[in-house]
Amino acid sequence: MSEVKVSAFSVSLDGFGAGPHQSHENPLGVRGRELHEWFFKTAVFLARHGAAGGGSHGVDNDFAARSFENVGAWILGRNMFGPVRGPWLEDSWKGWWGEKPPFHVPVVVLTHHARAPLVIKGGTTFYFVTEGPEAALRQIKDAAAGEDVRVGGGVATIRQYLTAGAVDEVHLAFSPVLLGEGENLFAGINLPKLGFRPVSTTAGDGATHVLLTRC
Amino acid sequence: MSEVKVSAFSVSLDGFGAGPHQSHENPLGVRGRELHEWFFKTAVFLARHGAAGGGSHGVDNDFAARSFENVGAWILGRNMFGPVRGPWLEDSWKGWWGEKPPFHVPVVVLTHHARAPLVIKGGTTFYFVTEGPEAALRQIKDAAAGEDVRVGGGVATIRQYLTAGAVDEVHLAFSPVLLGEGENLFAGINLPKLGFRPVSTTAGDGATHVLLTRC
Repeated sequence: MSEVKVSAFSVSLDGFGAGPHQSHENPLGVRGRELHEWFFKTAVFLARHGAAGGGSHGVDNDFAARSFENVGAWILGRNMFGPVRGPWLEDSWKGWWGEKPPFHVPVVVLTHHARAPLVIKGGTTFYFVTEGPEAALRQIKDAAAGEDVRVGGGVATIRQYLTAGAVDEVHLAFSPVLLGEGENLFAGINLPKLGFRPVSTTAGDGATHVLLTRC
Repeated sequence: MSEVKVSAFSVSLDGFGAGPHQSHENPLGVRGRELHEWFFKTAVFLARHGAAGGGSHGVDNDFAARSFENVGAWILGRNMFGPVRGPWLEDSWKGWWGEKPPFHVPVVVLTHHARAPLVIKGGTTFYFVTEGPEAALRQIKDAAAGEDVRVGGGVATIRQYLTAGAVDEVHLAFSPVLLGEGENLFAGINLPKLGFRPVSTTAGDGATHVLLTRC
C-alpha cells in the first residue's frame, strides 16, 4: 500500500533539522550542512550527483538507498525549493538543484503563490500547490501512482504533516552534531501521542538511524 | 584535575530526561523508567544493588562503569532526593534509595529548606545546601577531595549547572524511546554556545552514548 514517509531526515542531537538564518548562501541554515555529512559521504548520494564509483557502502549508505526506494512523489516546503519569497516574479528559479534535481518523479512544492508546473529533463516535474498541505497530499498521492509519497522537508513542512497525522513512517538520522539553535523537529510535538514508536536503532559511521512507525 | 561531570544521563530521542508528573509512584515521571532500561540491565547497576554476577558486559556496561569512576562527590536536585516538598517536616525520608544509597561519597542536595546532614552507613552523607547551586558546588568540591563532582540530576539541576558554564563533560545515553512530554534537557539551552562539542558516539545494545566536552 502507498505510504507517506519521512526518510533520511537528518537531525542534530539536540533535535534541530536545520540551522538558523536560512539564506541563498546557507540553504540549510547556518551549520545545517553538518547534519547531512553522513549522507554526502554515501555512494548513493555521490551516484545521484554524478560521481558514481565513490562513496561509502555501509549502514549509512543502506539507509540512503532505502530512502529513495519506492518513492513515487515528493512533497517539499517552499524554502526547501528555494530562497525566493513572495510571488514568483520570474520563473528563472528552478530549485536549489538547478538543471539536475535528484527527484526524477513528481514533486509538490507548497506555496502561497501560483506558478505553472515546471518540467525538468530527467523525470522531475515541480507542481506548485497553493491549496494547503492536505490538498497537496491528495494531489500528489494520485501522481505517485501507488508508490510512496516522501515528505522531504523542511522542518516546518514535516512538522505540519506529522501533526496532521498524515505520516506513516519516519526515518531520522541523528548526526553527532549540536546546533543549539535553528528549526527544532520535536518542540511542541508529542510523537507518542501521534502513535509513533521507535522500532529500530542502527549505528552508522556518520549517523545513528532511528526508524519510527505508527502502531 | 577535578572536573564537574554529568554522566550516564539518559535522554529520550526527543530530548526528555524525565517524564511528566513526577510522584512518589513515578520518581522519574510517567514512563521515565524507560529511559534507564539500558542501565538497569548492566552488571554495574546490578552489582551496586546487591545482585552481583548478573547483567550485561558490553558498551552499556562500560559506560555505566565509567560514570562511577573517580567520582568524589555528587550534586542532586531536591526532586532527585525525594518527593517531599516544602520544609522537612520530619527527617524520616532518607532518599529514594532508603538504607542503601548507591553513592558511598558526600552528596549535596539542593534545597530551600535547611536540614542537618544525613549520614548513612556505607559512606554516603547527604548535605542539604540552601545557599544556591554555586555555593553548593564550591562546598562539594572541597568534599570531593580532588576527585570529580558528578551532577546527578534531575533535568532542572543539570540545566542550571550547564547554563552557568560549570560543567566540563557530559555523557548522554540516548535511549530508543520517545516521551513526547516531560522535562526537556535541551530546550532553550544552546550547548555549542556554552562551548560543548560531541567528541564520540558509541552504540550500545540499549542506548547510544554521546560524549560532549568543552573546547
